[in-house]
Amino acid sequence: MKINRYVDISTIERDAKKDYIDRHSPFVHCEDKATLGDPFKVSVKMGNEYTHPDDFDHFIAYVQLWNGEFMLGQASFAPGTLGNKPGHAQVDFYVVPNKDLKLTAMAFCTKHGLWQSDEIMVTVN
Amino acid sequence: MKINRYVDISTIERDAKKDYIDRHSPFVHCEDKATLGDPFKVSVKMGNEYTHPDDFDHFIAYVQLWNGEFMLGQASFAPGTLGNKPGHAQVDFYVVPNKDLKLTAMAFCTKHGLWQSDEIMVTVN
Amino acid sequence: MKINRYVDISTIERDAKKDYIDRHSPFVHCEDKATLGDPFKVSVKMGNEYTHPDDFDHFIAYVQLWNGEFMLGQASFAPGTLGNKPGHAQVDFYVVPNKDLKLTAMAFCTKHGLWQSDEIMVTVN
Amino acid sequence: MKINRYVDISTIERDAKKDYIDRHSPFVHCEDKATLGDPFKVSVKMGNEYTHPDDFDHFIAYVQLWNGEFMLGQASFAPGTLGNKPGHAQVDFYVVPNKDLKLTAMAFCTKHGLWQSDEIMVTVN
Repeated sequence: MKINRYVDISTIERDAKKDYIDRHSPFVHCEDKATLGDPFKVSVKMGNEYTHPDDFDHFIAYVQLWNGEFMLGQASFAPGTLGNKPGHAQVDFYVVPNKDLKLTAMAFCTKHGLWQSDEIMVTVN
Repeated sequence: MKINRYVDISTIERDAKKDYIDRHSPFVHCEDKATLGDPFKVSVKMGNEYTHPDDFDHFIAYVQLWNGEFMLGQASFAPGTLGNKPGHAQVDFYVVPNKDLKLTAMAFCTKHGLWQSDEIMVTVN
Repeated sequence: MKINRYVDISTIERDAKKDYIDRHSPFVHCEDKATLGDPFKVSVKMGNEYTHPDDFDHFIAYVQLWNGEFMLGQASFAPGTLGNKPGHAQVDFYVVPNKDLKLTAMAFCTKHGLWQSDEIMVTVN
Repeated sequence: MKINRYVDISTIERDAKKDYIDRHSPFVHCEDKATLGDPFKVSVKMGNEYTHPDDFDHFIAYVQLWNGEFMLGQASFAPGTLGNKPGHAQVDFYVVPNKDLKLTAMAFCTKHGLWQSDEIMVTVN
């Protein structure tokens, strides 16, 4: 099975391809430092610049947040969560770290498959 | 199947029962007004005062956010998301309303079953 | 939140209502006796006589199998699993019982909400 | 994120490693021919020879069935579905193919991460 990876869209020439890559890529947004044992907010959000459809036949069915090889959580959606309008699907998780985090997000589009974010490192003290 | 409902814990006499009810109840937290077509943040959070365990044999396996009879999203967790420490499991959803919202949350504890929040009404303009 | 319950459709007069009830109801199919510690097949299947659509805007998004207050498993689908044709969505679980079972199924239709099956008792020896 | 792949265990010398690989690998079991538009049973089963634990801190949290880049279904489990005994976690899906299938399964172990099966081709007439 193919897992699509985010590619820095500033390196892409064709506009349609930038749009395609960006809106299908989940991004992990969080601080780069966390406190041991305290809830730590981590957002997974689709796209930085371009919005993904929320059509019945084309929507983001789930996003997952991973710490290394361990899945911290999965958020699943039915079409219509974003009001059937293009948007940045987003979910915030609150994890309680017990050591440094190595976060990645995965997202599944019902038309264009599985996409993986870049990895984000978080120092935990 | 039994669906447990939140009961105002100020009406409960026994402390152990307050704790039990509160930490198993999901609560919907959001503004009471939203803007048509704009992303609207809705948090589902377990417990107001008491924290739920995140033990291997006793954890919150999922929370769901519903708008009337429609499920907007489900967030699933494996034990350990909260670092195996008691805590308020929480997830923020961002929905795009196209009319007034009638929000409820459901949560499933692997030891104590399914719990439903009170209903929250949101006016959408 | 409303949970719709199966009603014996032989007691319903109007044909359109029989269809509506039957195709939205999950049914638990299994033997009535199981062997302690052995895998025991339990099917959850939508509808006995009528088939549910698998349209993009109208499909069975998940079914769950419960033993009393404990959820044994949840199967989630994207639209298209049934080839976008009406059909009886079905999933077989294999549980290993350690005492008598009290099985119910839940199913969520993206247009018509949450439905609960009748309860099935299984003796375990 | 690392996705572990099945390796033919007859090529592995060390017994402990055979066990580790086999019990963590999902396998797709189905006929090699299907009929266009008819429900087609596909089993996803963990391990051929060795059984995976169903311990609270070590269990199969979900299996997924994919057709190429499209996810047909995901079955999620809480620990205890297999009676807290080692076993072959299994789920049967019934898909309705509209063209040839290229099936893979994914499985997530809460201790040892994500595993992918070999690909199974199904001719559809």
